[in-house]
Amino acid sequence: MQHRDVSSSATVRAEEAGTPAAGGTDPWRLVRTDHDPTRAAHHESLFALANGTLGVRGGLEEAPSPSQGSFLTGVWERTPIEYHERFPGFARHTDTRLPVADGTRIALWLDGQPVDLAAGEWLDFEQALDLRAGALNRRLRWRSPAGATVQVEAERIVPWRAPGLLCIRYRVRSLDYRGPLALDSVLAADNAAAGQGDDPRIGARVDGGLSLTGASADAAAASVCQSTRRSGIRLACTQRHRLPGAALAFEAADTDAHGARQRYVATLAPGDCATLEKYVAYAWSEPGEDIAETVLLDAAAATLAQALEQSFDRHLERQAEACAAFWRAADLAIDGDPAAELALRVNLFHLRQSTAPDGRGSAAAKSLTGEGYEGHYFWDAEAFVLPALACLAPELARGMLEYRVRMLERARAHAREMNHARGALYPWRTIGGDECSAYFPSGSAQYHINAAIAFALRLYVDATGDTGLLLDGGAEMLVETARLWLEAGHYSPRQGGAFCIRQVTGPDEYTALVDNNHYTNRMAQRHLRHAAATADWLAREHPADWAALAARIALGGDEVDAWRRAADAMYLPVDARLQVFPQDDTFLDKPRLPDALRDATRHGPLLLRLHPLTIYRHQVCKQADVLQAFVLAGDYADRAAKRRNFDYYEGVTVHDSTLSASTFGIVAAEVGHADKAWRYFREALRVDLDDLHGNTAHGVHLAAMGGSWMGLAWGFGGLRCHDGTLAFAPTLPAAWRGYRFGLRWRGRQLRVAVHAGCAEYTLLDGEPLAIRHHGRALTLHAGRPAVLPLSGRTRFPQPFKAVVFDLDGVLADTATVHHAAWKKLADEIGLPFDDAVGERLKGVDRRASLEILLERSPRVYTEAEKEALAARKNAYYREQIERFGPGHLLPGARAAVESVRRAGLKTALASASRNAPLLLERLGIAGLFDYVVDAGRIARAKPDPEIFLAAAAGLGLTPADCLGVEDAAAGVAAIHAAGMAAVGIGSGPALAEADRQLPDIAAFDIGQFATSA
Amino acid sequence: MQHRDVSSSATVRAEEAGTPAAGGTDPWRLVRTDHDPTRAAHHESLFALANGTLGVRGGLEEAPSPSQGSFLTGVWERTPIEYHERFPGFARHTDTRLPVADGTRIALWLDGQPVDLAAGEWLDFEQALDLRAGALNRRLRWRSPAGATVQVEAERIVPWRAPGLLCIRYRVRSLDYRGPLALDSVLAADNAAAGQGDDPRIGARVDGGLSLTGASADAAAASVCQSTRRSGIRLACTQRHRLPGAALAFEAADTDAHGARQRYVATLAPGDCATLEKYVAYAWSEPGEDIAETVLLDAAAATLAQALEQSFDRHLERQAEACAAFWRAADLAIDGDPAAELALRVNLFHLRQSTAPDGRGSAAAKSLTGEGYEGHYFWDAEAFVLPALACLAPELARGMLEYRVRMLERARAHAREMNHARGALYPWRTIGGDECSAYFPSGSAQYHINAAIAFALRLYVDATGDTGLLLDGGAEMLVETARLWLEAGHYSPRQGGAFCIRQVTGPDEYTALVDNNHYTNRMAQRHLRHAAATADWLAREHPADWAALAARIALGGDEVDAWRRAADAMYLPVDARLQVFPQDDTFLDKPRLPDALRDATRHGPLLLRLHPLTIYRHQVCKQADVLQAFVLAGDYADRAAKRRNFDYYEGVTVHDSTLSASTFGIVAAEVGHADKAWRYFREALRVDLDDLHGNTAHGVHLAAMGGSWMGLAWGFGGLRCHDGTLAFAPTLPAAWRGYRFGLRWRGRQLRVAVHAGCAEYTLLDGEPLAIRHHGRALTLHAGRPAVLPLSGRTRFPQPFKAVVFDLDGVLADTATVHHAAWKKLADEIGLPFDDAVGERLKGVDRRASLEILLERSPRVYTEAEKEALAARKNAYYREQIERFGPGHLLPGARAAVESVRRAGLKTALASASRNAPLLLERLGIAGLFDYVVDAGRIARAKPDPEIFLAAAAGLGLTPADCLGVEDAAAGVAAIHAAGMAAVGIGSGPALAEADRQLPDIAAFDIGQFATSA
Repeated sequence: MQHRDVSSSATVRAEEAGTPAAGGTDPWRLVRTDHDPTRAAHHESLFALANGTLGVRGGLEEAPSPSQGSFLTGVWERTPIEYHERFPGFARHTDTRLPVADGTRIALWLDGQPVDLAAGEWLDFEQALDLRAGALNRRLRWRSPAGATVQVEAERIVPWRAPGLLCIRYRVRSLDYRGPLALDSVLAADNAAAGQGDDPRIGARVDGGLSLTGASADAAAASVCQSTRRSGIRLACTQRHRLPGAALAFEAADTDAHGARQRYVATLAPGDCATLEKYVAYAWSEPGEDIAETVLLDAAAATLAQALEQSFDRHLERQAEACAAFWRAADLAIDGDPAAELALRVNLFHLRQSTAPDGRGSAAAKSLTGEGYEGHYFWDAEAFVLPALACLAPELARGMLEYRVRMLERARAHAREMNHARGALYPWRTIGGDECSAYFPSGSAQYHINAAIAFALRLYVDATGDTGLLLDGGAEMLVETARLWLEAGHYSPRQGGAFCIRQVTGPDEYTALVDNNHYTNRMAQRHLRHAAATADWLAREHPADWAALAARIALGGDEVDAWRRAADAMYLPVDARLQVFPQDDTFLDKPRLPDALRDATRHGPLLLRLHPLTIYRHQVCKQADVLQAFVLAGDYADRAAKRRNFDYYEGVTVHDSTLSASTFGIVAAEVGHADKAWRYFREALRVDLDDLHGNTAHGVHLAAMGGSWMGLAWGFGGLRCHDGTLAFAPTLPAAWRGYRFGLRWRGRQLRVAVHAGCAEYTLLDGEPLAIRHHGRALTLHAGRPAVLPLSGRTRFPQPFKAVVFDLDGVLADTATVHHAAWKKLADEIGLPFDDAVGERLKGVDRRASLEILLERSPRVYTEAEKEALAARKNAYYREQIERFGPGHLLPGARAAVESVRRAGLKTALASASRNAPLLLERLGIAGLFDYVVDAGRIARAKPDPEIFLAAAAGLGLTPADCLGVEDAAAGVAAIHAAGMAAVGIGSGPALAEADRQLPDIAAFDIGQFATSA
Repeated sequence: MQHRDVSSSATVRAEEAGTPAAGGTDPWRLVRTDHDPTRAAHHESLFALANGTLGVRGGLEEAPSPSQGSFLTGVWERTPIEYHERFPGFARHTDTRLPVADGTRIALWLDGQPVDLAAGEWLDFEQALDLRAGALNRRLRWRSPAGATVQVEAERIVPWRAPGLLCIRYRVRSLDYRGPLALDSVLAADNAAAGQGDDPRIGARVDGGLSLTGASADAAAASVCQSTRRSGIRLACTQRHRLPGAALAFEAADTDAHGARQRYVATLAPGDCATLEKYVAYAWSEPGEDIAETVLLDAAAATLAQALEQSFDRHLERQAEACAAFWRAADLAIDGDPAAELALRVNLFHLRQSTAPDGRGSAAAKSLTGEGYEGHYFWDAEAFVLPALACLAPELARGMLEYRVRMLERARAHAREMNHARGALYPWRTIGGDECSAYFPSGSAQYHINAAIAFALRLYVDATGDTGLLLDGGAEMLVETARLWLEAGHYSPRQGGAFCIRQVTGPDEYTALVDNNHYTNRMAQRHLRHAAATADWLAREHPADWAALAARIALGGDEVDAWRRAADAMYLPVDARLQVFPQDDTFLDKPRLPDALRDATRHGPLLLRLHPLTIYRHQVCKQADVLQAFVLAGDYADRAAKRRNFDYYEGVTVHDSTLSASTFGIVAAEVGHADKAWRYFREALRVDLDDLHGNTAHGVHLAAMGGSWMGLAWGFGGLRCHDGTLAFAPTLPAAWRGYRFGLRWRGRQLRVAVHAGCAEYTLLDGEPLAIRHHGRALTLHAGRPAVLPLSGRTRFPQPFKAVVFDLDGVLADTATVHHAAWKKLADEIGLPFDDAVGERLKGVDRRASLEILLERSPRVYTEAEKEALAARKNAYYREQIERFGPGHLLPGARAAVESVRRAGLKTALASASRNAPLLLERLGIAGLFDYVVDAGRIARAKPDPEIFLAAAAGLGLTPADCLGVEDAAAGVAAIHAAGMAAVGIGSGPALAEADRQLPDIAAFDIGQFATSA
């Protein structure tokens, strides 16, 4: 790959006005031509370059904005937290990543005057993040107020292979200008820290930024030294230049309180071109390390010397090579949607830039692109960023985990601060390893951080096979964090002896200090089992390591068993009435947020508008914890349960967290809400591109970026890893013709390509790999693609073996009889009965129907009274159907069932009505069914799949072999929940979830649906 | 009353070493002779003088300590609260009462040298708070290192009738010294504010104290001017002197950065005496008031001019008169315990000093005696201080309520900050009316503050009949605060439509942000009903006022009904298993605090040792909310229920709040735990005298002081006010021969005197007054004491009309048969059955017994299985009793019942056994009972009183006419809960609660218990 001159690349207009994404676009280049200064901070975040060690926001060299800045992972301040009311264990200080000396600045002088871009005319402007090159390229053709026209071209890289180095090639070309040119190449050391203002998401109050402790400048180099005030970190930043083409010459150098500068001058004539290559290197100390500034200056000089051994073009080449390796692993393509392809690549690029393999840090919430969240690491790193990196850049995932291992001692200390005698508790937000949350209800109380780290460790080891990390401290971290659950939880006699974890906060910060948060308990259960299994493995495979570890941490002889016991007894109830997992013990009891509060001012998240008590008091989620548990540990729930939970929690979630959309999208894809899966995916995908949360200016939302890749691979691709085996369940969004993504898995490269109707798995190299496709095991061999049918929304015809018919409304119009009977009963007992009620009764059994009817009752009925009412309704109904005959079959019903039998398929009847046998007799079709489900044996009403599962079992078939036919939404949901394909009979949107919708049973043609067996 | 020379009063030694309380003591003088400098701060709090406007700590004039200080109710600073993570509605600032210029200082010079008391010898020292005089008197005989002996005598008053005035008479007497004496009389303006350190209870960080804005001094007067930095309050303090006896002469005056001073000199010979009378006056502005210092100086000068019109002795006389009026109302005496009498008076004295009738402030948590809690007002004022003041100094109680009315507008604003569209929410801690809590979980979340204010308003109006306060803003405050409950709560479908209040914190700060805190819900219920009743009264009696109020606050037409509906539907469940009120929805589910955490370091409250999460996670109470509800609104629960709750919550309460002991003492007295009532009373009584919580140095615990009076009047005296009627239920602690307390009630003076065996109620003046004594209504007439028998522990004989016998274990030894039957069943189903289980089954019905047996079962039994098991046990039992005959009666049983009948009393049988009728037949005693309770009609097992209430009803008698005879603890509890006297049959501690214990039924002699009718 070779360097391309930026001036030759075409300008691409953004798809949405002012938005730097593109349609009909080069899917490898993020381009902006908009130079609205009010959006400068947003663009600086999006166009930031980083390598996990150094981050440089994407401001223009000659037009710096106040929000332009550079960051180093290793440079942060420690500020005491003062509380007006402080309690034991409250975080004592916060760590804040501060802007370091910024090396991007090159002030432009024409005709002896400093250039003010705003005063002139922007004739042509383009800034492009070239994802293949890993470079930020920029072009500006500009006319001064005096009429001089120049073109500026700038190329910038923060090389992935050289931590602490920034390289800029800056070129000024005269189009019609004749006269002197000066370039002041600046190291700007005057960046103040951001203030919190009224937004707790930006950062804590920090008193000032870094101190400037020294500056020097001469013809050869310029340097500044900075230090933190309290964390004891020192920093040197040095720049040197190359002047290719010799148009420019050094003129002067100076330093002041704001930094250091070197001035280069030239005299331009039209067509002349002056080029400055600027190399900026950083060196910094560990916190509290006793190191002289000269040592740091020498280190920075050494980095520069090495950098200058190579040409700028060679730097570009090496950067492009590094990028190419990453893109080979990511292997990403979207057929038919270049804008989405570009957006995904931008997100992946930022993920790749966010962290380094050196184990000195993790992926910060805003990466290295801004000051949001003080540069802290949260669970985002493990739950949203690492799943992508483990499969695309495993060495970075390892670095993130090594950082956590390095901080284990601090996590132990934190556990003691929280009064736990054993184990380790990772801090909710941190840089240097200590808890930095000043508000513990949505800080330290988020114990689930421990489980997220364990999840990430497991996923990393599954993806790489790198058990070495377990021996290098990973197992100790896993065990120490697992132990904490036994400290935090207890066996509760009043919950039937279940293991309960109380007074924690889940990921959803809109409830806090709750008992038995579903996500926390589920993840703790996984964590405990994982730790126990790892302990067993270690004891078996590496007994000496295990013995040493056990001795080092004083592991009791029965502790591993105790973890399993607690996991087995974990309290994870299902709400009896709603059949969903309660988010916590009291969540479902709360009222929903009234519209008056929800809509108060209509913009901004609730946390910026309502007192936490108001939020906590209502059933409102920032993000949905139960769905999050489904994503990270979802194999405990079936599809129907997940769908019920999705539907429930979607109704109470406001998505104020940028983490929410990807989670909803992944679960929506899994439960068959294809439209919603698409919508949520899009939202996660474009959080920063479209500034959906209004604060990309403070840095990109790295977790949403990770979530967008998960939305592709985990959501549409259905990727999961269960017990070490990679599994997929791909679906294809309607908007795409196809898509592709790659994975590094256990040293091999795997490609998953999804097209209309089929998924194609290709192992590009290495030993055979066992995977699962929609639950089916298969083994891939290198170079031999496996093509399998897609089965999300069923495509007909398929080789079905049976059709399971509903009765009421499908074969006979008993629905109207039911309706009449219910209405008669309702009238008699004085309850309203309108169409809405009538519609809800469809497909629902007698007892559940009665409960729906009685919802509007002002009085409470006893069980006995309810029995009597149900019997009364049934009597009315039976009176009517006693008079039924074959004439009451719906037109075409008999023909439909007979055609199925003729086609060689079996037939079954799955009716919720206990009167079905009677009715079949009266209708004269009793003999047409191989199996009739006895409604009396069915405990759970549709949409529970029980009745369809019973039908399949009665026929001796698996559900996938059966096609269900239903006329009610609850019935279609039940068919899907059973894992069958569904035909919906009737018009109207209620049946839209069916795989095919027919206006009536007369339109049923088995040939459309089933291939002959 | 005349002034007594302090030098003539006898020194009284403290009862406990170093503790300024006394045994064999003058019960009107709190005396200390200890001058340990490490206890100086503690003593300064205890010996502080105040008048609700000005507070002056009790430091020595010539030996000031750093903790000496003076305070004005009206002078406080406003400090912004900074949060590292701030959310909407968080308190923006805190108000802090700051020390003002201290006027107590008089520096003593002998022989031209400043006296350092620590360097010389303390020959005789006494400091006495003279409670009758309302003065602080002090004497010190001291020998200098040079051998000169002098005696200092100081008298100090802060006149109750003169806000902002301090008067000191300071006398130096030479015993053997000859030489010059100088007295520097100082206004010290250099008091810094206290720092919080690590104790959140002291106060918030305030940047510095008051600014000194001016100082002047000359021969006539000295002044300092101070101002706050942000709250805009200015202050002038001026002193003048009188020099009686002319020994002293003015020498010089000066000012510096620390204040102002005037120097007086004399030449002493042995026997000479120099006397300085010092008058210090304060004047201050409202916050933000634009007022010139000269105006304030003029006001202070005017106060001084007025003060100097009278002699010092006249000031003492007037103060003593004011005290006398207060002590007449308090009318306190303890017969046989002068130390307790003194302690109670000290506490009442501090209550009287804490607040003023001017409506400018309320009673601060630490009164005006120190900097603890920043000088804030909490619910303590209304719940613990006002109950005493409403009955002893009603004008002060009115002032406290007027202050709240003045702050209503701020409370409305606070409600809006907390997102409530209507109503007012008083801040949890405040001075200037705004919420000053920086930690909302134990701050703003304590919504119950509203109900405490309503409670206090009602008690005040009940005690005074002053409905004028309702018209002067009280009704508006009541209605606006009541409205808030409808904003905060909701009707919860999942709690059966009950009205639930979620995410609040009760008084017990060891749980926070809970749902349905029992105290909050109960008090809200009372508050809503009270508001509705007041609305009705207002509409009826003052329709124009009501119409104006309704219009002013836009009261909806149905709001008053809505309050009643919410009150009626209030969610106040009883736990089915424990039969106690759960403190909140999840409290009982939590584990108890493990010993390891409880005992971690063993000193200090948990809140200083454990992270809040650790505390919240466990079932541990700082104070018990359910018991608090019993005290303030207890008429909803019967005695047995209160006792169950007391026993339960005592087991989980650590009493880290000084408010806890008085509440436990009051409930203990009510439920018959006489020993505990005494112990808790003592603890509340002596919190500050014995520095039981180690922080009296920061100020006295005013709520505990108020609580100690409640312990006497509400606890031992059983005082309550239900529906406006004053009720008593006196008991006499074993340690006392008798006690007496007085009350102002509706303009009359009432004396309640309790002696051995009887209570004596004397109305000293005014119209007749209806009261209740142990539930019996009586009317008191002035000057005609009513003497009534005490009935706490019943004293026999009494004119009982019936005896209600238990059967099993009392008349027949069926207990062993039951025991054998249960054991047989337990063996058959493989459950353990030991004596402990056996003991618990005594007196308990079949079904409840089975539940006890099954507690240890590893599996869950269905209802049907339980029915079967119960039937099986009954079959075993009936097999045995079918073989019973009269020979199975216990010895003396028939004689006991017959003797009761012979004595003319009725007899009843109250057996929990459904087999009782069969058994009576077999035993041949069926004819001996006038009434046999049908166990089949009894729904609730003993200790519920239902069965004994049914027996009394069956006999046509009130429970008080009946004597119950039982052999089981649950039975004795049931008898007591029914309001009957109890005879316990059997030995052992389980029956200790019975009024009389007999070894067996043969020892029963009706003559011992009943007088002939």
